[in-house]
Amino acid sequence: MSEMNLQALLQRVNSTQIAPGNPRVRALTERIVTDLFKTIDELDVSADEFWTAVDWLGRLGAAGQLGLITAGLGFDRLLDIRADEADQRAGRQGGTPRAIEGPLYVAGAPTATYEVRVDEGAPKGEVFVMEGQVRDLQGQPVPGALIDVWHANEQGGYSHFFPGMQPYELRRRIQADAQGRYRLRSYLPPGYSIPPNSPTSELFEALGRHGHRPAHIHFLVVAPGLRTLTTQVNIPGDTYIDDDFAFATRDGLVIELERGVAPAGYESLGIEAPFVRSRFDFVLTPALNDSEASPLARIARITA
Amino acid sequence: MSEMNLQALLQRVNSTQIAPGNPRVRALTERIVTDLFKTIDELDVSADEFWTAVDWLGRLGAAGQLGLITAGLGFDRLLDIRADEADQRAGRQGGTPRAIEGPLYVAGAPTATYEVRVDEGAPKGEVFVMEGQVRDLQGQPVPGALIDVWHANEQGGYSHFFPGMQPYELRRRIQADAQGRYRLRSYLPPGYSIPPNSPTSELFEALGRHGHRPAHIHFLVVAPGLRTLTTQVNIPGDTYIDDDFAFATRDGLVIELERGVAPAGYESLGIEAPFVRSRFDFVLTPALNDSEASPLARIARITA
Repeated sequence: MSEMNLQALLQRVNSTQIAPGNPRVRALTERIVTDLFKTIDELDVSADEFWTAVDWLGRLGAAGQLGLITAGLGFDRLLDIRADEADQRAGRQGGTPRAIEGPLYVAGAPTATYEVRVDEGAPKGEVFVMEGQVRDLQGQPVPGALIDVWHANEQGGYSHFFPGMQPYELRRRIQADAQGRYRLRSYLPPGYSIPPNSPTSELFEALGRHGHRPAHIHFLVVAPGLRTLTTQVNIPGDTYIDDDFAFATRDGLVIELERGVAPAGYESLGIEAPFVRSRFDFVLTPALNDSEASPLARIARITA
Repeated sequence: MSEMNLQALLQRVNSTQIAPGNPRVRALTERIVTDLFKTIDELDVSADEFWTAVDWLGRLGAAGQLGLITAGLGFDRLLDIRADEADQRAGRQGGTPRAIEGPLYVAGAPTATYEVRVDEGAPKGEVFVMEGQVRDLQGQPVPGALIDVWHANEQGGYSHFFPGMQPYELRRRIQADAQGRYRLRSYLPPGYSIPPNSPTSELFEALGRHGHRPAHIHFLVVAPGLRTLTTQVNIPGDTYIDDDFAFATRDGLVIELERGVAPAGYESLGIEAPFVRSRFDFVLTPALNDSEASPLARIARITA
């Protein structure tokens, strides 16, 4: 279209105001609108294409799946890379690597001290214990650290989002003991896949992409004075371990598994036969301010 | 962030595929994702800001308000300007100017031939008749043209979207007579304002913008072999006539009002006292293909 008409409309849209508003929101909106106008013009987007995209975005929001698309288009990973770079610039080193939270965290899981069985009933996969310690950068234990753990069921579904699951199924919070130790029993979960016949799968099909994540377990670790850690561990051997649709697999977060571990000492977790064990310590870095020590704003909103 | 990291992630996000997919969707997605990554980086968007925006967009979709935001940020007007320019390049001149459809069209309104009263019961504003003819570019009448008309109630609300209104309230379809003539009675509506306490109003407040449209009446005119016309007429004298939040007021679409017209000849519309009249002809251009003669894809989807 004519550059003059494009600029005239942009000028009107971006300069209209009757009150100061929020300068940051104005600046971000102006940038995003300007880029989208240019995309529409330069890629000659038709009205049909535009309204198809708007309709899709509305259905995506109504389905509560925006967080799947941000992950699948790399935004969540982008934020992690930017946070890693900011740490590097500030000379903040060490600690367990962060990894994307994903959209499926739910606060308020049942809490236990030191150890917990995360699954219930007959195991739906290999019986698995993960255990370790929460430490600070000096190697000191962090007594009482709170560890949220959540993972998919044997069909790849998360409770509160996947039909037929119980509230808080496969979601627990563990309070580390006086030595910062924790242990949990569950089963090794399979990977996650985006819901079929959904706005998310529509886009993935149009992109010619798969919507699979390798098997993983989510953690959120909170302790006073230390920076909240959102991370995931990956279970080795998954087909998609280097082809995560959310681009979130990281070095240092693929756990090692010991198979055939003798049950002695694990009776309190109901284990009576050889099982799979992994040791994993969470190392937290100091918080520079209160907000770093609090759960993320995103989480606060979800729980509100 | 480091340009290398940014480009590496973009490359991964944009090149990943297991099937050809739809090349057009891939190209558009790549462009939009690339622009948004750069916006996040160059404007140093924090994780909190990002998730606040994602949360807002999800609520906007769930509230069915995406079409208000596209109008308010000028996208609907942009598409009209692009369509006008395409006509100009193709030497397609004449005809009633198009104007944005807005997100509040509903198909399936009750149909009458030649004339209809659009409102019911005691008038909620000045009694108003609009009448005229549907013609083609040669000035020939278009018998049987279908004219959808819809407008806001006295509180600025549209039926199917505003609480407490009846289905198809202030929505009618008129089939023009053998001479292409139509006439309708209603009342002069006030302007429209975005819903308060909604995701849409949140953004407008943050932008320091008002969310008002000047008083207007929507039309969709369909006839075989002629290009479907989506337009609006504006009622003169409105405070916001040159300050429409959707940027959609156009020359040639501000109607003229005759006040104090004698009721003789308008008895069949239930008029017994002086009223306000406006004459307005719809001039349709030839359709170059079937899709130009059909209701817009956007409308087809809404009715499906």
